[in-house]
Amino acid sequence: MSSMTKGMQSISFQEQPYLISSGSVVGKKEGEGPLGARFDMIDDTDQFGEKTWEAAESTMQKEACLMAIGKAGLKPQDIRYIYGGDLLRQGIATSMGVEALQIPMFGLFGACSTSGEALALSAMSVAAGYGDRILAVTSSHFGSAEKEFRFPLGYANQRPLSAQWTVTGSGAFLVGNQKSNIRISGVTIGKIVDYGLKDSQNMGACMAPAACDTVIQNFEDFGRNGEEYDHIITGDLGYVGTDILLDLVKKKGKDISAQHLDCGKLIYDQDSQDTHAGGSGCGCAATTLSAYVLPKIAAGEWKRILFVPTGALMSTVSYNEGESVPGIAHAVVLEHC
Amino acid sequence: MSSMTKGMQSISFQEQPYLISSGSVVGKKEGEGPLGARFDMIDDTDQFGEKTWEAAESTMQKEACLMAIGKAGLKPQDIRYIYGGDLLRQGIATSMGVEALQIPMFGLFGACSTSGEALALSAMSVAAGYGDRILAVTSSHFGSAEKEFRFPLGYANQRPLSAQWTVTGSGAFLVGNQKSNIRISGVTIGKIVDYGLKDSQNMGACMAPAACDTVIQNFEDFGRNGEEYDHIITGDLGYVGTDILLDLVKKKGKDISAQHLDCGKLIYDQDSQDTHAGGSGCGCAATTLSAYVLPKIAAGEWKRILFVPTGALMSTVSYNEGESVPGIAHAVVLEHC
Repeated sequence: MSSMTKGMQSISFQEQPYLISSGSVVGKKEGEGPLGARFDMIDDTDQFGEKTWEAAESTMQKEACLMAIGKAGLKPQDIRYIYGGDLLRQGIATSMGVEALQIPMFGLFGACSTSGEALALSAMSVAAGYGDRILAVTSSHFGSAEKEFRFPLGYANQRPLSAQWTVTGSGAFLVGNQKSNIRISGVTIGKIVDYGLKDSQNMGACMAPAACDTVIQNFEDFGRNGEEYDHIITGDLGYVGTDILLDLVKKKGKDISAQHLDCGKLIYDQDSQDTHAGGSGCGCAATTLSAYVLPKIAAGEWKRILFVPTGALMSTVSYNEGESVPGIAHAVVLEHC
Repeated sequence: MSSMTKGMQSISFQEQPYLISSGSVVGKKEGEGPLGARFDMIDDTDQFGEKTWEAAESTMQKEACLMAIGKAGLKPQDIRYIYGGDLLRQGIATSMGVEALQIPMFGLFGACSTSGEALALSAMSVAAGYGDRILAVTSSHFGSAEKEFRFPLGYANQRPLSAQWTVTGSGAFLVGNQKSNIRISGVTIGKIVDYGLKDSQNMGACMAPAACDTVIQNFEDFGRNGEEYDHIITGDLGYVGTDILLDLVKKKGKDISAQHLDCGKLIYDQDSQDTHAGGSGCGCAATTLSAYVLPKIAAGEWKRILFVPTGALMSTVSYNEGESVPGIAHAVVLEHC
């Protein structure tokens, strides 16, 4: 076995698996943001040639997958399995998006933590010898997500300042046993953490306790402190959730304020882009990881990163029935090699 | 490594993992059906002490998990990971259901194929040494599913004869490296198969091509024929889908009519229970596997079974936007040992 359990919730991998290539596809607003020049593909119409937001999101997933596969000089038939998910009911963006690739598929749902779940399962599968090349993909789309969780765009509802802006984007990651400059050295699988919050317009607050739980567990399982990571990068806590996370971690006797970054804060310019508490969605962490984080690890600028996408486990039905919004976060350790 | 890839889409395990225990929880109609006496728990109110169908489904998942864990003489903290999913938007039955167990969790979505996906991933994780005991759970509920995919129960819409009856039930399975009388010897992960069908009231027809694809792939990958299985048990094709599957398999030059069973046909009495084309839902295959199939394998009455849950990948949004309903099926090989 090339891998082993570590502590209560983690797995540690020796040498492989490697993160071989990735692809990022985004919409107009993301293209206009601080990371705009780094994305692989931008569609200024947000439609990606399709008639519905859902079909547009599916096409983004397909394009991101083809991008990651193509960068590695491979074809879809070279990929053994795909792990994918999105935010829409019954994961239709993934089902419709990856259908054309005809790769045996595991459908996932972990809300905005799905990119962590998909990367973890891809790494676990490659390390176990279940495939030489496995693809992880997630996406979100502002139009489809607003319609799913809040209101259709045409309703033009007003957004509170705690609300986040769902990223229109998809990121795909090719994980394999072929040497690259980035290896996945471990994962920490999160538990569901529920502080009883019920505000669907304040996802950052709902997810921050789960992020804290997973980060602290990662430290315990691997015997590390924040200083042993160049950065600890959460998925989409945004401005509100980040403050809560840093406070919660301090209460546990740790301080990660020097290392912490959040994709929801990185992807938009808060002053000029009117995105309130920052970016969110499955596509936020995935596209930021692909376009911004991975190149820095590959170049050796960052040696070890803890990537922690966070998810708010809710649906319109659970929300309307008065249920709270529990959170979950999965952590993936990425290292330069 | 205790495991290896097999053919294009399959994995073959040596010796472990074992299926250690399972739990089945169902509602009134399932309790009145042909398998009624075999289920672990029946609630004649279908409410499981809760006020909403969604909360009832969550409670079923929790009870099924506790049943499987309890039968093995264990506690939730003895379980390393849980793989779970359901049919509801954003998988809320699982999220809310397993929250109380506080087991690190992977959320899945594969429509009614989810029990196969969860069992496959649990087996893969145990075989790779990622945990000694891993839980797989899925569920469906007639009330929550009708509301999600068709109409709320109070609307009392008329059901066409091709429609299936969503099973109110949850099945949980404990997979581990501790010897039992049932081992998981292999899995075949399905691709998305789309024949372009668009009828959400005829799920069997939408899923049958995927079942055919996965069964034939399993035969190819393992070099087997139908005769090498005591039974090939699909999840919930029902009466309409079963006929289509047998025809499609024949067109591929194979005949599985002597071995084939379908959980959607087994769980209700078609003459007396007015369930039209049979049972369906994530809970159909899971509860039938737990209550009816596993005891026969454990007793040695059946030596080798191919369990093939099938899923229809749709949502109300994709359906209303005119998209087709692609299918997916995952196969799990279960053997007496």
